[in-house]
Amino acid sequence: MKLPGQEEFEVSSACKNVPTGELDSSPGSGPRPDGPLDTKRGNLGVSKDPLLFIQLNELLGWPQALEWRETGRWVLFEEKVEVGAGRWSVPHVPTLALSSLQKLHSLLAEGLVLLDCPAQSFLELVEQVTRVESLSPELRGQLQALLLQRPQHLIQPTGTRPCQGSAHPREASYNEEALLKEQHQNPLRQKLPPGAEAAAVLAGELGFLVQPLGAFVRLRDPVVLGPLMEVPLPSRFFCLLLGPSTVGKGYHEIGRAMAVLLSDSQFQWTVRRASNLHDLLAALDAFLEEVTVLPPGLWDPTTRIAPPKCLPSQHKRLFSQLREVKGPPAPPGALAEDRHGHWLRTPSPELQRTGRLFGGLLQDVRRKASWYPSDFLDALHPQCLSAVLYIYLATVTNAIIFGGLLGEATSGAQGVLESFLGTAAAGATFCLMAGQPLTILSSTGPVLVFERLLFSFSRDYSLDYLPFRLWVGIWVATFCLALVATEASVLVRYFTRFTEEGFCALISLIFIYDAVGKMLSLTSAYPIQSPGSPAYGCFCQYPDPGGNESQWTRTEPKDRDDISSMDLGLVNASLLPPTECAQRGGHPRGPNCHTVPDIAFFSLLLFLTSFLLATALKHVKTSRFFPSVVRKVLGDFSSVLAMLLGCGLDSFLGLATPKLTVPSEFKPTLPGRGWLVSPFGTNPWWLSVAAALPALLLSILIFMDQQITAVILNRAEYKLRKGAGFHLDLFCVALLMLLTSVLGLPWYVSATVISLAHMDSLRRERRTCALGEPCSFLGIREQRLTGLVVFILTGTSIFLAPVLKFIPMPVLYGIFLYMGVAAMSSTQFTKRVQLLLMPAKHQPDLLLLRHVSLSRVHLFTAIQLACLGLLWIIKSTPAAIIFPLTLLGLVGVRKALERVFSPQELLWLDELMPEKERSIPEKGLEPKYSLGGDSEHFTGVTQKSGYCWPLA
Amino acid sequence: MKLPGQEEFEVSSACKNVPTGELDSSPGSGPRPDGPLDTKRGNLGVSKDPLLFIQLNELLGWPQALEWRETGRWVLFEEKVEVGAGRWSVPHVPTLALSSLQKLHSLLAEGLVLLDCPAQSFLELVEQVTRVESLSPELRGQLQALLLQRPQHLIQPTGTRPCQGSAHPREASYNEEALLKEQHQNPLRQKLPPGAEAAAVLAGELGFLVQPLGAFVRLRDPVVLGPLMEVPLPSRFFCLLLGPSTVGKGYHEIGRAMAVLLSDSQFQWTVRRASNLHDLLAALDAFLEEVTVLPPGLWDPTTRIAPPKCLPSQHKRLFSQLREVKGPPAPPGALAEDRHGHWLRTPSPELQRTGRLFGGLLQDVRRKASWYPSDFLDALHPQCLSAVLYIYLATVTNAIIFGGLLGEATSGAQGVLESFLGTAAAGATFCLMAGQPLTILSSTGPVLVFERLLFSFSRDYSLDYLPFRLWVGIWVATFCLALVATEASVLVRYFTRFTEEGFCALISLIFIYDAVGKMLSLTSAYPIQSPGSPAYGCFCQYPDPGGNESQWTRTEPKDRDDISSMDLGLVNASLLPPTECAQRGGHPRGPNCHTVPDIAFFSLLLFLTSFLLATALKHVKTSRFFPSVVRKVLGDFSSVLAMLLGCGLDSFLGLATPKLTVPSEFKPTLPGRGWLVSPFGTNPWWLSVAAALPALLLSILIFMDQQITAVILNRAEYKLRKGAGFHLDLFCVALLMLLTSVLGLPWYVSATVISLAHMDSLRRERRTCALGEPCSFLGIREQRLTGLVVFILTGTSIFLAPVLKFIPMPVLYGIFLYMGVAAMSSTQFTKRVQLLLMPAKHQPDLLLLRHVSLSRVHLFTAIQLACLGLLWIIKSTPAAIIFPLTLLGLVGVRKALERVFSPQELLWLDELMPEKERSIPEKGLEPKYSLGGDSEHFTGVTQKSGYCWPLA
Repeated sequence: MKLPGQEEFEVSSACKNVPTGELDSSPGSGPRPDGPLDTKRGNLGVSKDPLLFIQLNELLGWPQALEWRETGRWVLFEEKVEVGAGRWSVPHVPTLALSSLQKLHSLLAEGLVLLDCPAQSFLELVEQVTRVESLSPELRGQLQALLLQRPQHLIQPTGTRPCQGSAHPREASYNEEALLKEQHQNPLRQKLPPGAEAAAVLAGELGFLVQPLGAFVRLRDPVVLGPLMEVPLPSRFFCLLLGPSTVGKGYHEIGRAMAVLLSDSQFQWTVRRASNLHDLLAALDAFLEEVTVLPPGLWDPTTRIAPPKCLPSQHKRLFSQLREVKGPPAPPGALAEDRHGHWLRTPSPELQRTGRLFGGLLQDVRRKASWYPSDFLDALHPQCLSAVLYIYLATVTNAIIFGGLLGEATSGAQGVLESFLGTAAAGATFCLMAGQPLTILSSTGPVLVFERLLFSFSRDYSLDYLPFRLWVGIWVATFCLALVATEASVLVRYFTRFTEEGFCALISLIFIYDAVGKMLSLTSAYPIQSPGSPAYGCFCQYPDPGGNESQWTRTEPKDRDDISSMDLGLVNASLLPPTECAQRGGHPRGPNCHTVPDIAFFSLLLFLTSFLLATALKHVKTSRFFPSVVRKVLGDFSSVLAMLLGCGLDSFLGLATPKLTVPSEFKPTLPGRGWLVSPFGTNPWWLSVAAALPALLLSILIFMDQQITAVILNRAEYKLRKGAGFHLDLFCVALLMLLTSVLGLPWYVSATVISLAHMDSLRRERRTCALGEPCSFLGIREQRLTGLVVFILTGTSIFLAPVLKFIPMPVLYGIFLYMGVAAMSSTQFTKRVQLLLMPAKHQPDLLLLRHVSLSRVHLFTAIQLACLGLLWIIKSTPAAIIFPLTLLGLVGVRKALERVFSPQELLWLDELMPEKERSIPEKGLEPKYSLGGDSEHFTGVTQKSGYCWPLA
Repeated sequence: MKLPGQEEFEVSSACKNVPTGELDSSPGSGPRPDGPLDTKRGNLGVSKDPLLFIQLNELLGWPQALEWRETGRWVLFEEKVEVGAGRWSVPHVPTLALSSLQKLHSLLAEGLVLLDCPAQSFLELVEQVTRVESLSPELRGQLQALLLQRPQHLIQPTGTRPCQGSAHPREASYNEEALLKEQHQNPLRQKLPPGAEAAAVLAGELGFLVQPLGAFVRLRDPVVLGPLMEVPLPSRFFCLLLGPSTVGKGYHEIGRAMAVLLSDSQFQWTVRRASNLHDLLAALDAFLEEVTVLPPGLWDPTTRIAPPKCLPSQHKRLFSQLREVKGPPAPPGALAEDRHGHWLRTPSPELQRTGRLFGGLLQDVRRKASWYPSDFLDALHPQCLSAVLYIYLATVTNAIIFGGLLGEATSGAQGVLESFLGTAAAGATFCLMAGQPLTILSSTGPVLVFERLLFSFSRDYSLDYLPFRLWVGIWVATFCLALVATEASVLVRYFTRFTEEGFCALISLIFIYDAVGKMLSLTSAYPIQSPGSPAYGCFCQYPDPGGNESQWTRTEPKDRDDISSMDLGLVNASLLPPTECAQRGGHPRGPNCHTVPDIAFFSLLLFLTSFLLATALKHVKTSRFFPSVVRKVLGDFSSVLAMLLGCGLDSFLGLATPKLTVPSEFKPTLPGRGWLVSPFGTNPWWLSVAAALPALLLSILIFMDQQITAVILNRAEYKLRKGAGFHLDLFCVALLMLLTSVLGLPWYVSATVISLAHMDSLRRERRTCALGEPCSFLGIREQRLTGLVVFILTGTSIFLAPVLKFIPMPVLYGIFLYMGVAAMSSTQFTKRVQLLLMPAKHQPDLLLLRHVSLSRVHLFTAIQLACLGLLWIIKSTPAAIIFPLTLLGLVGVRKALERVFSPQELLWLDELMPEKERSIPEKGLEPKYSLGGDSEHFTGVTQKSGYCWPLA
């Protein structure tokens, strides 16, 4: 599961994808900075034209054995034929020599340019192209014959190596039908969208020519040029670049230059609309104007550059072009967005205050009601089926882990059964009612931590836990309703990354500390047998045949406590293990009858195994091995698989490790209570009022946890069409709070990571995308059905309970540790702490470090560390339960930081609070333009990082 | 420790470094492909000129607050000032806009060009430069004042942020002395070699100018230009690029273009020798001719490109230039080397056969004798001290590990004591006598495996091991002498990578298998107490006061074997642990008195901990964390540290894990033998003759092991001056074989990895190197003293023995596993096996895959896997001892592969055998030139990979 905000930190990955071809544009809201843009040059948005596939055929073997051979192809990136290997290279950024572009310029300028040529077949085209004065009729015939010769293509899946050496040319009598079949079976064809066109570039040395022959043809109607192309696409462009022998690879490079030009979106746009040679050459010049140049002494031109994670913004290109050509423009609105849109966070419309009581809620209900029917119809797609399976597994794993942890934290007041039941009931209800049905409700780390504190508080004061908890729940629901009424959700904007990461870091630390602590406590429960300790002190003593105890001649031990050195005089005893002894009617006697050897270290092994395995499997997702579907499964189900392996290892050895406690019947885990929690129990009446205090704290926590997730899920980058429902979501959470408290089930809020995984499994993408290019993202299948089915399935899984008792606790602790470590390492805070350990010259080239001085970065990190230390100290005192309040205190600390750091610094280190957003003086940004002026700031710096949780 | 041959596999890392500045050239042998080259353009080698430091000062703040500020600097790569962060960016490859270069061209063409200007100070220079017709006297005065204004530099270590915003300009009354001090304290100065010169580029907008003002000055004598530069270097070039306000960052980019041009070695060379404007512009055009162009749609010009691991060869640049300009040249010899030198392995002169008996040996002795005095004098350098410490630790660790393993493999016939003694004696002798004294003699994996087989063979036939071993040693020495006499070392060229990696893979597998096997055998020695087993079956039984045994009323057990269920009637018994029981005069009785709980799992934990820790620490070396010296120590001593941690953990818990057996006195490990091995012992006399058979096998192994290491160490890339001594080395090994066999010490040959680490710690490097550029390598301190001292220290460490008995065996097994895994993963074979698991599109862009079809690569891998399987089967039969012979059989298989694969394919997959080297037809290489023609084959493909061993 990709963690939100994780990527923006790195320079290279902070970008948007630019689709190459036609964008299946939907009536989406939100800005589309890379979409088409109207300027006075007309609709310059290059996305309306069909995709162009370009193929370079080269003429090789002059003078003995002339033949055409495909040597390269382009959609966006270049692929060349690896001659020896007989395969396509990996797609890469094409690099050109400047001289090739210049030679191409002169070839075109002096050559034949036919725009809107009416040729209907390859033959006609060849005739048109060769109608050049410089050619004698004889030569013309020769040339025509040569052009009509079938080229050799490299079509990979045939298994054989058609291009391997020149020793095995394909026979000329090659079957036409076979060729057509081959063309149609070409796997490349699947990757090109319908409507795609082709461009053929033919280049090479032809010794009998006296002077170079250049021809550029734009066909009026695209024509399938027979065997010329490897895929049977209609060709729009045809380019011929032949000439007498030269030194080196002249025509090869000129041909590549032409192909690269044609693959450039702006050149393509212009040349599709060019009306004469002048336009064509102007487009070439415009291309040259914008190229990036690498110095020859530092860059080997044969180095292949991997496709960048993000393509340069077409807007920016256009903008720089306009600025260059026409002086400082009055940029259209979209350009202003480019300059500032990424700097200033525009609050989403759902977070605008209406000013009326429950105004936000009503607005949410009204907005979502209109989409309600479509929320079910939109789910009718096979993709939803796999999403259900995926999210179901994640949800069940979550229910098991949190159920197990909750059972332990509350000494069995709740357990796995409650976890399953609550998850199913609350989740399904939420899916049906919520404003954002893509959200997956789940137990989360913060709420678990609070519940643990609440339980130990009530235990310390000998309270009846579940009734007390019921009142806390009632109060929380009340407070949350008040928050809904007052539209408090709009305040979520005050939670900057500083707050979120403080939140995340503290909870992660608690997870890590608890996991390790629980694991170590196992070693006291199952002590390690060191050499000097009486490891073998256990007898099985039988009653003698007469029914009396065996004779036990006790002598006083020499030292009082030295029980192991006392003399035993007994008969009717054996060495049977305690359990068997009891079965045979004996009594285990001795100091060590209740210790089990080997369990401590085996538990530690299980703990480490599950932690390391989960971590390792997570990394498989980004490794090079296995097909992508296998990698995805291994990565996404890393914790499930780690758990399964742990359980397998445990049951293989069959040791008596501590296992998950699971009730054998369908009844609450706590013995003796019904499904409804009694409102008072043994507690005094005033406790129902006093519960308001912890409820206030929990409300803060719930609010932060729920709304931060909601903000992350509703980010513009996910292109949601149906809008968010912050107030409605909180309303649902309040109601479910009431329900789960009454039934004594765990409490639920939206879980960031599992919800993001849900969205991720429902992405709509353009399937056909150029090789090497990241697929373009169209939106999310927004609907309520997948969530609903997931929770119904979870409900039926209650009957899994008998299987669950095979899960050893150390395995759960291992996963718990993994969750803590993963959440911790996903924060920018952790990355900044790492900077403390790195010498300056080894630090990664982070945007942050380009704009804020290192000492200031370290100061910010140190303040965060100090806050964290303070929070940890408070958490360790008896006042631990007030930790939600101290988390909220982070907002105050963040506010105070405005006195220490400049707005620019905070913009890079954190983000700005609402009232500061418009206070950065325009001038403040100026140095970036006037000095150095790189535009790295275009990358999305104000995306909310989101605190994140690997499972919950 | 870097493994040889490991890097060449990756495209990007296979290259040579190109020094930027003056090369401290030594009278080294071997080709210097990147050195100076005489052509008809004169001595074009750019390495004779001083290094040039280029600084860009920009004029900012027009019209209100004009000031000069340093915004970029170059030696080779670009560093720009990160304005906000107040620090230098990471060095990166500069990218330019083509238009900036064109604008620069016209600025220079129309501007003032002063070559060999005689100005002696900045003031004079400014006067000269402003003597332009277009300027009115008034403007001229203004301009001069502006130019003389002190620029602001970013000098990092001051801690404050001089460039932070425009709010804090440095006061004009800045103390001159303070400035000078600052200039001199600039850390950059340390990095620039003595004699370096500077170039100042001043660029910016100046509104009062009507037309652009360009000036380029080459000073006749370089002059320190006062506060202009951040370092007080004499400036050779001065360039002024001013003009009226323009849009965007015009002059910034033009200034950068000028600076980048000046940082280009060929442009620099030309412009230092230019006699007029025409030459200058021609150099600019030549630069443009060679630039690499990136298409604007695919490459964001603000992306920073990290410095490539290798710079393009200046030869190639020159060659392509010549070819471009003058048609196909008759390239000078050095270029021919470029085209073919890397393809065809030229055998080193030491491996030429003389044809006389002991001819090679005599030649070696003669060659090395002349260097003998210098072999001691050259060691007088502080670097040798750290080399001694480093190699000493590695050697001792090695002696412990191999001693421990040998002790176990031979059931104590040899042990740690012999390992220390033998290492010290053999190593010191070798260092004094050998042909290549940089070699470190050590126990190696293959010899250990053979010794293990030999021991189990002699045990199977009830032979007296050490006497038998003595005869094997005598025969091996004889055979090796015969090999020396017949100059057999020249045959080493038949061991291609196929053979070496087969060798390496088999031994690695044996290591891995043994380590895991030994670990698992511990779990049978210390069984795990599963719940049903009688875990507690041990009594302590005392004699009764009368001296009789305690009463033991035995009744028959119900089942015969069910010892734990029998009734015991005994008095005078206690539950004391067995050891204490025995101390108090009792007898431990019962079925489980000799099992110790918890040991199995704890051993497993120690095993995994030491393996994982050693692996992790190894990776620290390439991580970003910690200063480089810390990383180097952690990485280089990973196994020492892992061992120390394992021992610490073990002694902290104090469990009775199995420990290394160490004799308490200084006498041979085998009880009852003296320091000299008796020649027959209890063996029959004819065994001394029969020993010739295993000796033959061992000789093959020793020969392969020794000579492959020698070839790797004497590679041309290490620039050794004193030559190799293959025959002399083998001669020494033969003599030491005899010595160690007589004394019953382990056998020794040269160890690849530890010797390479030795060389690596003795590298001579040019310390001043441009930022971002890898330091250039001058050679190795070839001497005998470091090795000698290391082995003397090892000898004195025999008295460490009492400390060594705290090392738990599982820790040693962990390190053993680490060695096997590291050796295995260093082979190209492993990387090809990994390819089998990767989908084609995720495969790395390997040179191999560019030139050989994937199915052929897989076929080759499959054949290697089959060979390995066959070897493993042979190794598992009773015929295991003949495995050296089967290893030699790999040479035959490799020979047969010539019928399956073409020479080109073998060139990429393996390397060519001697007689095939000249058989690749010239034509065979042609497709690479005519088709696509990338020149990736310039990378060193024929370097011997070397089978490699992380510790031995």
